[in-house]
Amino acid sequence: MRFEPKDQDWETKTRASFARQAFMSHLGARLTHVMPGEADIELDLVPQLTQQHGFFHAGATSSIADSAAGYAALTLFPADTGVLTSEYKINLLNPARQPVIVARGRVVKPGRTLTICQSDVFGLDAGNEIHLATGLFTLMALAGMKD
Amino acid sequence: MRFEPKDQDWETKTRASFARQAFMSHLGARLTHVMPGEADIELDLVPQLTQQHGFFHAGATSSIADSAAGYAALTLFPADTGVLTSEYKINLLNPARQPVIVARGRVVKPGRTLTICQSDVFGLDAGNEIHLATGLFTLMALAGMKD
Amino acid sequence: MRFEPKDQDWETKTRASFARQAFMSHLGARLTHVMPGEADIELDLVPQLTQQHGFFHAGATSSIADSAAGYAALTLFPADTGVLTSEYKINLLNPARQPVIVARGRVVKPGRTLTICQSDVFGLDAGNEIHLATGLFTLMALAGMKD
Amino acid sequence: MRFEPKDQDWETKTRASFARQAFMSHLGARLTHVMPGEADIELDLVPQLTQQHGFFHAGATSSIADSAAGYAALTLFPADTGVLTSEYKINLLNPARQPVIVARGRVVKPGRTLTICQSDVFGLDAGNEIHLATGLFTLMALAGMKD
Repeated sequence: MRFEPKDQDWETKTRASFARQAFMSHLGARLTHVMPGEADIELDLVPQLTQQHGFFHAGATSSIADSAAGYAALTLFPADTGVLTSEYKINLLNPARQPVIVARGRVVKPGRTLTICQSDVFGLDAGNEIHLATGLFTLMALAGMKD
Repeated sequence: MRFEPKDQDWETKTRASFARQAFMSHLGARLTHVMPGEADIELDLVPQLTQQHGFFHAGATSSIADSAAGYAALTLFPADTGVLTSEYKINLLNPARQPVIVARGRVVKPGRTLTICQSDVFGLDAGNEIHLATGLFTLMALAGMKD
Repeated sequence: MRFEPKDQDWETKTRASFARQAFMSHLGARLTHVMPGEADIELDLVPQLTQQHGFFHAGATSSIADSAAGYAALTLFPADTGVLTSEYKINLLNPARQPVIVARGRVVKPGRTLTICQSDVFGLDAGNEIHLATGLFTLMALAGMKD
Repeated sequence: MRFEPKDQDWETKTRASFARQAFMSHLGARLTHVMPGEADIELDLVPQLTQQHGFFHAGATSSIADSAAGYAALTLFPADTGVLTSEYKINLLNPARQPVIVARGRVVKPGRTLTICQSDVFGLDAGNEIHLATGLFTLMALAGMKD
């Protein structure tokens, strides 16, 4: 294990917080992997997530990239500390038109106030992985704000 | 008028393309303003757009910021040219918990291949405007791809 | 005055800190304007600041954009508080080949821990201003670290 | 070899272009590694590259990150094609105060028009590597512009 979580309850709190993100349910997103410093979120290609050419809207792609980064960070936060996205940047590399896409958020640098994560999005299609997007995210730890 | 559109049909094509973005309908987004180099998109604070603290999810905020930037760019593209987001960066400045938020996309630098836009998101609350987010977007013009 | 400085000494400390940035002297940079929440820095087009095509190197352009953002932020910090760049993003809009370039750093959102600035770089050529770059910067306030 | 260069002359042209970047010489930067899709650039901690606390100025750190990204991209370009930075974003992770820093530019996604690179900067100190910065860069290929 590369990172040592400060809160024994890291997995339960992360899954519970994800379950409370109404926006993630609205997109049909699934939290498919949680480890200290890591979180993966998946989306299926359904019509309501598309833009005008029938691909995933960049907003859908980056929404799961953002949540994956946020939950990767949250796993390393102390108890009773919430997470908020301060800023991020994302490069869209390839058209997102695979049946399933997965965002993999990984902590690059944990910190007391700011945690930096990388989040990469891949399209899963018949056993192949296509690199769709890569982003850098700054997450803020909010002491005293339960997540 | 600061920018001269290359396609007389700029308003119709922009509104028609927005109407085809299923993801925007799924969020309940409204295109409330279109001018050459400008597009505004609004969202209402409804439960399905929130994160775990009841605020707009950063993904919802940046989705309308992205679409506003993209449509601001599209107004200046020649006919039969589509728009795709190449990359963007967004800073979230204040909690997004106002009844309505509006993203205002504005072209900073038009170009044959790449167009740079700024998109700012404001919360509208009882006549006040709160600056929620500011972002920079690179949009790509795709010749031969109808938008 | 849009922003109220917390430190009466804002101008002296900002100019003194700039004078101690050896890297700015090495580039030949000049701090030409300081106001609460604002700082401008200029560079002359000299051969040692160029890239392989004879334009200002993007590194030179963004170095003054970064310092201008940092000093714009510092003017609003309390006494005995240092400034550090946490992250930034910059879009290069036009070739930087004017005799003089100026970076104008402006605070967008001051904060106790994080301050967000926009920094725009312009080329000055025979009375004209060409927009060369626009960037967003996150600056961190470091209490107890004199700047 | 992960990437197939389109120009047999990739190494010579990359080294020659670096040698013509006067700004890199002005910083004392060394190109220490070139491979298809890869370029490393090093800097020594000398007083003229520091900010007010004696660390490397963020501008120096990101200048070599930018050049490393640009040359990583150039190795994959066809002959008679120049490289220009379109935009980038960088997160500064740790104070840069090691005797030597190295920026490692790597192509993430090559493209006819746009190439996306990641550039990571490490501090080298007594056999240790400290991760100082991570950035994402969009490079543009300019046909007909010799680099």
